[in-house]
Amino acid sequence: MIEPARFLSDLHTLRGFGAAGVGKGVVRPAYSQADIAARQWLAAQFRDAGLRVQMDAMGNLFGLREGPSLLLGSHSDSQPEGGWLDGALGVVAALEVARACNAGGGPPVSVVSFQDEEGRFGVTTGSAVWSGQLSLEEADALTDHAGVALGDARAAMAQMVTGDIDPSRFTGFIEMHIEQGPTLDASGEQIGVVTDIVGIRDMKITFDGQQNHAGTTPMALRRDAFQAVSSFNTLLNDRLRNVVTPQSVWTIGHVSLHPNASSIVPGRAVFSMQWRDADAARLARMEEIIRETAAEVASERGMQLGYGPLLGLEPVQMDARLQAALCRAAEEVAPGRWRRMPSGALHDATNLSRLMPVAMLFVPSIGGISHAFEEDTDEKDLAAGLDVLFRAVNSLK
Amino acid sequence: MIEPARFLSDLHTLRGFGAAGVGKGVVRPAYSQADIAARQWLAAQFRDAGLRVQMDAMGNLFGLREGPSLLLGSHSDSQPEGGWLDGALGVVAALEVARACNAGGGPPVSVVSFQDEEGRFGVTTGSAVWSGQLSLEEADALTDHAGVALGDARAAMAQMVTGDIDPSRFTGFIEMHIEQGPTLDASGEQIGVVTDIVGIRDMKITFDGQQNHAGTTPMALRRDAFQAVSSFNTLLNDRLRNVVTPQSVWTIGHVSLHPNASSIVPGRAVFSMQWRDADAARLARMEEIIRETAAEVASERGMQLGYGPLLGLEPVQMDARLQAALCRAAEEVAPGRWRRMPSGALHDATNLSRLMPVAMLFVPSIGGISHAFEEDTDEKDLAAGLDVLFRAVNSLK
Repeated sequence: MIEPARFLSDLHTLRGFGAAGVGKGVVRPAYSQADIAARQWLAAQFRDAGLRVQMDAMGNLFGLREGPSLLLGSHSDSQPEGGWLDGALGVVAALEVARACNAGGGPPVSVVSFQDEEGRFGVTTGSAVWSGQLSLEEADALTDHAGVALGDARAAMAQMVTGDIDPSRFTGFIEMHIEQGPTLDASGEQIGVVTDIVGIRDMKITFDGQQNHAGTTPMALRRDAFQAVSSFNTLLNDRLRNVVTPQSVWTIGHVSLHPNASSIVPGRAVFSMQWRDADAARLARMEEIIRETAAEVASERGMQLGYGPLLGLEPVQMDARLQAALCRAAEEVAPGRWRRMPSGALHDATNLSRLMPVAMLFVPSIGGISHAFEEDTDEKDLAAGLDVLFRAVNSLK
Repeated sequence: MIEPARFLSDLHTLRGFGAAGVGKGVVRPAYSQADIAARQWLAAQFRDAGLRVQMDAMGNLFGLREGPSLLLGSHSDSQPEGGWLDGALGVVAALEVARACNAGGGPPVSVVSFQDEEGRFGVTTGSAVWSGQLSLEEADALTDHAGVALGDARAAMAQMVTGDIDPSRFTGFIEMHIEQGPTLDASGEQIGVVTDIVGIRDMKITFDGQQNHAGTTPMALRRDAFQAVSSFNTLLNDRLRNVVTPQSVWTIGHVSLHPNASSIVPGRAVFSMQWRDADAARLARMEEIIRETAAEVASERGMQLGYGPLLGLEPVQMDARLQAALCRAAEEVAPGRWRRMPSGALHDATNLSRLMPVAMLFVPSIGGISHAFEEDTDEKDLAAGLDVLFRAVNSLK
C-alpha cells in the first residue's frame, strides 16, 4: 500500500536539493549541481524500490520494471526560482506508487524524471529528445541565457549515463502535477483529471507608424504605434469573445515601443500575441480574427504591419481509457470534489503523446501560484492526488 | 538691408561645425568640440557685425548693442542626431537682422545663442540658468546619459567666458524657429506667429496587478496590467475629446511591462502620460480626467494605482505688442499664407518670458520632421521668415 507519510517525507527530502528563497522555494535548474545531486538521490530511491536505474544521454532518469510496464513520472528540474512541487511532485508520487505496486503485487510500474522540462535550454527539452521530436545534436546546440550550450552542460552528469531507453516497453504514461492555475483552489476541489493539453500559438506583431514630437504633432496627424496596439487589443477582446470558451486564453505579455520616451510619439511597437485552446480549429479561427483585426487597425491608422514566425504547438487529447481510470479513482477518493479540465500549461505528457497513451491529474495550487518560491499545495490534497494515482494504476491491471 | 544669400550662406557655414549623417544632418551637442568651435565662429560674426561679444559661465553667447536693445536669437547646440536648422536658424537670422539694423540705422538689436537648449543635461538648461530658474550650482550637478557632469563639461569653454549679462538691458526677445510639426507644411503656409507656448504635464502611472502563467490563468481571473493600460487609454481618448481643442495633445510614449514575456500575464505596467495645452485651466481639467479614469480602471480591474511626480511647466502667452508686429510683417511678406498658432514644443522663449516680453515666429518643417538628420525647410521659406523678423523689428522702433 502507498504510505502518504513516506511520500511527503521524500518530497521534503527532494526539496533539500537546491532549497532556497522563502517558504519551500527551490533553485534546481537542469544540470545544476543541485539537479545532479537530486537525480543521484532519486536513482538510489528507484534502486531501493526494486527498479533498474537507467539514464539516457540527455539526463532523463528512469527506474525500470522488467517487461511491459506503465510509466509514471514528471521532471525534477526547477525554474530559476521555483517551488518544491511542480515536477518533483509527479516524480515522487510515481516513486511511491511504484514502491507500493512492486511490494504489493500491483501492476508493473516504471518511473521517470525527465530533464530540462522547465526549459533552461528549450521547451520540455529532455522529453522532446526522448520522444524523437528533437535530435540530441540539435539539443546540444541550444544555449541558456548565459550562453552555455546544453552539450557542455550535460557533460556534468555524463558519469550517470547508461544508454538509451526504448519507449516501446511502456504501455502508457500518467503524470501527476500541480494545476499551476487557480481553478481547483478557487472551487475547493481536490483533483483535476486532464482532458486535453491545450495547443499554443505565439507570434510577434509589429506596427510601424511615424515617430514624432509629442508636442508639435497634432492628434489628427499622428501615426502612433502604441495607439495602434491599444486599439487592436480593444477590438480583439470584443471579437474573440464570440468564438472562445471559458478555457480559451489570449495574452499580450510583451510590448516594446520605440523609442519609448515620454516626449516622443512612438513610431514602432513590437508586441507578443499568444493564444491557447484545446481545439485546433478554434486556434485557427482565433488566428484569423487576430490577423483580420491587426490588418484593419494597420489600414485605418496608416501603419505598416509585420508578423514574426508563428510558433505552433498542437493540442493533445488525453487517452480515454487512462482518463476514465483517473475519473473513477477521483470519484472514490474525493467524491463530488473533482473535475475534468484542460491543462493550460505544457507538460512532458505533450511530447509522450506521440509515443503512447498519456493522461494527467492535477492537485490544487494554493492561490494559483507556481514558478515562484511561494508555490504550495495542502498536504491533504497531495495525499489525495497520490491516492487517485495509485487507485487508477491498480484499476488498469 | 538684410541679405538672404548671406544669411543662407552663414547657415550652411554653421552647419559645417558637426556636419554628419544624411542630408544636412548635424551632431553638435552642448559643450562638444563642434559646439565650442561653432560658438567661436559665431562670436567672430557678432564682432564683425559691430556687436560686443559676451559669454556667461554657462556658455550662453551674446552679441550686444550698447544701451537698451531688442534681443533676437535661439540656440546653436543640437540634438545628438539633429538637423541644420532647429535653433541655428534663429541665431543666424538674428545675426543677419542685427547686421542689417546696425548698418542701416535700424533699431538696436542684440543677438544670443543659448547653451544646451536641447537638454544634454536638463531642459533648456542655458536659458533656465540665465533667467534665474536654475542656479549655476544646481546646473553643474546635472549629468548627461554618459554620467558627465555639466560642471565638468562647461570647463571646456571656460576660456571664452567673460561674465554675467544683465537681462534688464533688453526690451524684449523674439525667437525665430522651425515649426517642428506638420501644420504649416501641410497647409502650404510660410509663417506661423506663435500665440502661446503650451504648458506640459508629465507623470508616470503604474498599475500593479497579478503576474500569472499565460496558460493556466483563466481570462476571468486575470489582473493583467497591460489590459489595464489599454483600457485606460481607450477610455481616456473618449473622455478627453469632450474637453480638448484641436491644439491639445496627449501621449503615452513610454510603456514598461513586467516581466514583459509572451508566456506571462503582465503583473505590472509603468507608463508615461504626457499632455500639453496652451490653457492652464484645460491642463488641470485634463489631469482630473486622467486621474479619474486611472482610478476607475484600477478599481474595476483590481489594480493598485501609483503616480510618479507630476512635471508641470506652465503655458506662456506671447507678448501682444511683439505678436502684433510679427502678424503685420507676416501679412506683408506672405499675404494670406501665414497663421497664428501655439507652439507645442518648449523653447528658450519660455524661460525668457519671466524676464521680458517675448514672441516667436515659425517657418515650415518639411514633413513635420525635426530632431533628425532629415530636418529641412525650403530656402524660400527661410528667407520669408528672415524678412518677417526684420520687418517686425523695424516696425518696433
